[in-house]
Amino acid sequence: MQKETDIEKALLRKYPEQVVLVTTRNKEGKNNVMAVGWTAIVSSDPVMFVLGIDEEACTYQNILGTKQFVVSFPSEKMAKETLFVGSVHGYKRDKIQESGLEIQEAKIVNAPVLVDAVANFECKLVEITKPGDCPLVVGQVVYAWENTDEHLKRLYTVGTDHKLAGVRPIEP
Amino acid sequence: MQKETDIEKALLRKYPEQVVLVTTRNKEGKNNVMAVGWTAIVSSDPVMFVLGIDEEACTYQNILGTKQFVVSFPSEKMAKETLFVGSVHGYKRDKIQESGLEIQEAKIVNAPVLVDAVANFECKLVEITKPGDCPLVVGQVVYAWENTDEHLKRLYTVGTDHKLAGVRPIEP
Repeated sequence: MQKETDIEKALLRKYPEQVVLVTTRNKEGKNNVMAVGWTAIVSSDPVMFVLGIDEEACTYQNILGTKQFVVSFPSEKMAKETLFVGSVHGYKRDKIQESGLEIQEAKIVNAPVLVDAVANFECKLVEITKPGDCPLVVGQVVYAWENTDEHLKRLYTVGTDHKLAGVRPIEP
Repeated sequence: MQKETDIEKALLRKYPEQVVLVTTRNKEGKNNVMAVGWTAIVSSDPVMFVLGIDEEACTYQNILGTKQFVVSFPSEKMAKETLFVGSVHGYKRDKIQESGLEIQEAKIVNAPVLVDAVANFECKLVEITKPGDCPLVVGQVVYAWENTDEHLKRLYTVGTDHKLAGVRPIEP
């Protein structure tokens, strides 16, 4: 049975929600990474992702500069690192170094790939729109990587206060 | 460790992926419902959802007509109904009646609310863009409902071939 409720209260029923890490590099060559929960696949041919990224984020400025980024699926072993990079700004800090995230060079784009992620998608910027209070960055996937550990699973936000964990399907 | 791979193969690492049901009503008053996996929240003030909806879907045509729809979080008890409404077109069939989904009137928009869902978000159309091969429908939430059963959880696509199930967080 449904009851009328506040929009914000109903939104608390959304968990678990997927989370991705987005890596970028600025024009001086400094890498950055942030956590993004507002994301979805939005095209299959070519494959594209949409990302909700705040205008004030270092990542947003880097994307404006290079038109390139990497969408990375953090593994359920990366909760601590994901929480850290989602909690601080990258302008004055080296979030990748501080978080301990291991990186390697991408094949095509000018941004790092995360070695311990479940998968990495190198993206080129397609467009930015702003229907509400947040810019929506759409990127076309131009190259892909996956973890050699086939059993490694994605990380999710499983509750309020940025509670992060892996999830498992239950039997119906 | 990362290995280079096909984009499609890397995308198989995305599961579990959230799924929503989108209800609409055409100008003749006939209700419809479809399943959408390409969805995310894209604004917090006001709250907005983005939905990837194929141009040929009955739902897309209904949204063009009324500029209104409902985004519903199916519960993990609604796997059968979600699979059904995601598998057939609504032009010549009554998917809501055939699926057995129970509906009630929305408060503001001209589309039905799903009684057994985890939550329902009444939406008004904000914009439609098409960065890739699929239109992206952005709707602003204008009214919300939630299930009176506080323990009811969302349904997810947990693997290929539209495998649907509930999920539970695991301990880190």
